Amino acid sequence: MKTPANPAPRVVVVGGGFAGMAATRALARSGARVTLVDRRNHHLFQPLLYQVATAALSPGDIAWPIRAMLRGQANVRVLLSRVVGVDMAAQCVKLEDDEIPFDHLVLATGARHAYFGRDEWEERAPGLKKILDATHIREKLLMAFERAEALDDPVATKRLLTFVVIGGGPTGVEMAGAIAELAQHTLARDFRIIDPASARVVLIQAGARLLETFPERLSENARRELVELGVEVRLGERVNALTDDGVQVGDEDIPSANVVWAAGVMASPAGKWLGAAVDRAGRVIVEPDLSVPGHPNVFVIGDTASAVRANGEPVPGIAPAAKQMGTHVGRTLAARIVGGREPGAFRYRHLGNLATIGRTAAVADFGWIKMTGHIAWVLWAIVHVFFLIGWRNRLVVALSWFWSYVTYGRGVRLVTAGEEVAREIETHGAHAGGRAA
Amino acid sequence: MKTPANPAPRVVVVGGGFAGMAATRALARSGARVTLVDRRNHHLFQPLLYQVATAALSPGDIAWPIRAMLRGQANVRVLLSRVVGVDMAAQCVKLEDDEIPFDHLVLATGARHAYFGRDEWEERAPGLKKILDATHIREKLLMAFERAEALDDPVATKRLLTFVVIGGGPTGVEMAGAIAELAQHTLARDFRIIDPASARVVLIQAGARLLETFPERLSENARRELVELGVEVRLGERVNALTDDGVQVGDEDIPSANVVWAAGVMASPAGKWLGAAVDRAGRVIVEPDLSVPGHPNVFVIGDTASAVRANGEPVPGIAPAAKQMGTHVGRTLAARIVGGREPGAFRYRHLGNLATIGRTAAVADFGWIKMTGHIAWVLWAIVHVFFLIGWRNRLVVALSWFWSYVTYGRGVRLVTAGEEVAREIETHGAHAGGRAA
Repeated sequence: MKTPANPAPRVVVVGGGFAGMAATRALARSGARVTLVDRRNHHLFQPLLYQVATAALSPGDIAWPIRAMLRGQANVRVLLSRVVGVDMAAQCVKLEDDEIPFDHLVLATGARHAYFGRDEWEERAPGLKKILDATHIREKLLMAFERAEALDDPVATKRLLTFVVIGGGPTGVEMAGAIAELAQHTLARDFRIIDPASARVVLIQAGARLLETFPERLSENARRELVELGVEVRLGERVNALTDDGVQVGDEDIPSANVVWAAGVMASPAGKWLGAAVDRAGRVIVEPDLSVPGHPNVFVIGDTASAVRANGEPVPGIAPAAKQMGTHVGRTLAARIVGGREPGAFRYRHLGNLATIGRTAAVADFGWIKMTGHIAWVLWAIVHVFFLIGWRNRLVVALSWFWSYVTYGRGVRLVTAGEEVAREIETHGAHAGGRAA
Repeated sequence: MKTPANPAPRVVVVGGGFAGMAATRALARSGARVTLVDRRNHHLFQPLLYQVATAALSPGDIAWPIRAMLRGQANVRVLLSRVVGVDMAAQCVKLEDDEIPFDHLVLATGARHAYFGRDEWEERAPGLKKILDATHIREKLLMAFERAEALDDPVATKRLLTFVVIGGGPTGVEMAGAIAELAQHTLARDFRIIDPASARVVLIQAGARLLETFPERLSENARRELVELGVEVRLGERVNALTDDGVQVGDEDIPSANVVWAAGVMASPAGKWLGAAVDRAGRVIVEPDLSVPGHPNVFVIGDTASAVRANGEPVPGIAPAAKQMGTHVGRTLAARIVGGREPGAFRYRHLGNLATIGRTAAVADFGWIKMTGHIAWVLWAIVHVFFLIGWRNRLVVALSWFWSYVTYGRGVRLVTAGEEVAREIETHGAHAGGRAA
C-alpha cells in the first residue's frame, strides 16, 4: 500500500505486545501517522499464559483486541498481517503480499522458545508463548488423566501421569506448581480407576538454583514451596534427549507423555530482517537510545532488543522493561517529529521480580524488600489483576482466582480436540493438525 | 473391559448432554453401576453456544467437565471415548478399541446439523453444535473485518462484510441479531478504512415466518426487531447453491465470505447402531416409556429420540425436553433395579419457548403468557444464567452480559489461527487444518 507523499511522518510499529503498545500510545499526540502491524488480532498478557495452560483462566480473559485498545487513538491504523522482512534501502516493511513504507520503524516482535539447536524437540516439548501453545498444553495435560483412566494399565498410567517441566525460571516454576495442584487438588476426586494425586511432577533445572534472577534466599524458598506441593525439583541436571517415550536426564530415562519446555527463548528474526548485529539469543544489540547502530530511525525494543543498563547488566526480558522501552522510543520519536528535546539514552527502572508457586505462595523481590509465602502471593495477584486490560477482564480473573482459592477448582478444563491429542500423547511427536481451545 | 459377573446391574449412558446427565443423576441412589461415555470431556450449555460464536462468551464459560459434575456420585464412572456401535446380541457398547457390557443402555447422543443430502455444503456453511464449531465461526467472522481492512478493495470488502445465516429458527435468529450488533456497535469505531456498520447481514428462512414453533405474533415481533437491527430478513426463500463466492438464493447470487448454517439437524447414528426404525431426521422412534421397540432395556432420549406427546405433537428438541426425558428414564431404571413401581409412559411438560434478538430484545412464549422486547430479554437472561453449571460460570456470564450491555463490548474477540482462517474466507471451502480457539 503506497501512501502519497504527505508531511505527517509515517511510523510503523511491528508487534502489539507490551513494548509495541507502549510505543504506539506514546505517539498519541505526536502528529505521526502510525501503523501497528501484528500477525494476531490480540494483545496478550503473557505473564498469565501458564494459567490458561493449566485450565485456571480462559484465553479471552488475558487477551484483548489490539484495535479495541487503540480505538480512541485516531492517528493509528491497526493491520493484522505477517511481516516477512524489512527493506532498509526502500525504507519499507515487507508483508506477505504488500509493503508499508516508513519514515521511522519500531520493531517489537518478541521472542519464541529456543531449543538450543535441537529444534526437533519442539514438538515433543511445546513451549508457552501464544494462546494456541497454552490451549494445546492444556488439552495434553487433561487428556493424560483421561487416557490413564480409560486404559487402566499401570505402565501406561505411570508414563501418562508423569509431567516433566524443563527450565527453572518463573514460567517453569509456575507451570510445575500449577500442574501439581491440578493433580492433587482439582482432579483429586474426579476419577474412579486412577489416583490423580499419584501423578509425578518433575522440574528440571540445568543451573544450580531455581529463579536465577532472584536472590538466593528466594530461590531456596521457591524450591521448598514446590517440594511441599509434591514437585520433584532436580537442580544442576541436564536433559540429554527427548524420546518417543519421554525424557532422558543424565543417564536416567523418565517415561513421560507430557513434557513442557520453559528453558529458554530466542528473539524473533528482526535482527535478520535488519542485517544487524545480534547477541547469542538473537536479540539486536541496540544503541543507548534503543535505535539500531547506523539507523537512527529504526528502533528495536522489548524481548527482541539486547539493551544494557547503566550498571552494565542486561535489561531483563520482563513486561515492565518492555513497556518502559516502548514508552521511551515513542517519546523519542514524538520529540523528533514535533521538534522537541529527545530523551536520549534509555534508563531502565527496575521495579522488582515476582513469581508464584501454586495457589497461595509466591516470591517477590523489590530490592529493598523481599517477600515470600502468602503475602507475596496476594501482592502478585493484585499486581497482575491491576495490569490486565479492561475491567471486565480484571473482574473475571479476580473472580476466577477467588473461586479457585475457595474450591481448588479450575474453571476451564476443556478438551475440544480429544482424539487428536490422545494420539499425540500416546505416540508422542507428530502434532495432529487440529490444535484447539 | 470385561467386568466379572456381579449382582449390581450395569447401566451404560452414552452422551453427557442434558439428557444423559439427567438420566445419570436420576440413577444416583439406584445401586446401579453406571458408566457414562462421551467423546468430549465436557457438558456443554448449547443454548449459549451462539454467544461463543459471536465473541460474547468464552468456551469455558458454558462448558463444564462431566467428571467434575458427577464427582460426588460414587456409582458413576466417566469415560472419555468414542462409541462406534452397539452389539445388541452381546449386549455391549463398542468403543474404538474396547467394549462395555451393559444390562441397561441409555443412548443420548444428540444431533448434528443436517444439510438435506448436500453434505458438501458443510465446509462452506458451518453449523453450530460444538465448541470447535463456535470458535471456528468466531474466527471467520472477526477475520472477515480484518481482511477487509487490510485489502482495502471495494469488491472484496462487500463480499467479506456480507454475512448470511441460513435458517430462521432460534439459532438463526440469535446468530443474525448478534452478528448485526457486532458489526454495528462492538466494532463500530475500531477500523480506519472500512465501516463495519456497512456490513450486510442476511437471514434466509425457507418457511413463511421466523421461529415457526412460536405463535405468529411473536414471529412477527422477532422479524421486526431484527429488521430494526439492520438484518435483511428473507422469508419463503430457498438456498439453491453454495458456491466459492457465496450463496445462491433463488436466482440471485449473494457474494459472502461467511455463511452460517442453522437450517436443520439430523440425529446421531444411534438408530443405525440399534437397527431401529427412525424418522426423517434420523431420530429413533421410541415407545411411550422411551425404550426402543422390542428392547425394553434400551432407551433413546434427547435429540436422538422421536417421542410423541399425549396431544400427538412431537416432543420438541430443546433442553428442558431432553432433561425431562433423562430424568424419566433414570427413574424408570432405578425403579426397575430396586424393584419399585416404574413411572410408565413419559409425559412431557412444556415450560415455554425463548429466543433472543440482539442485546436487549427477546420473545417468550409460556402458552398462558407471551412476552416481547426488553422484559422478555431480562427473563431470558435470568433463565439462562440460572441453568448454567456452577456459580463461577453464572457470575462470569452475568458479568460479561452486564459489561456488554453497558459498553456494547464483546470480551472474547480472539483470532488465534488468523492465517488459516484468512485463506478459508478468501478462497472458501477446504478447511484449513487448525481450527482453534
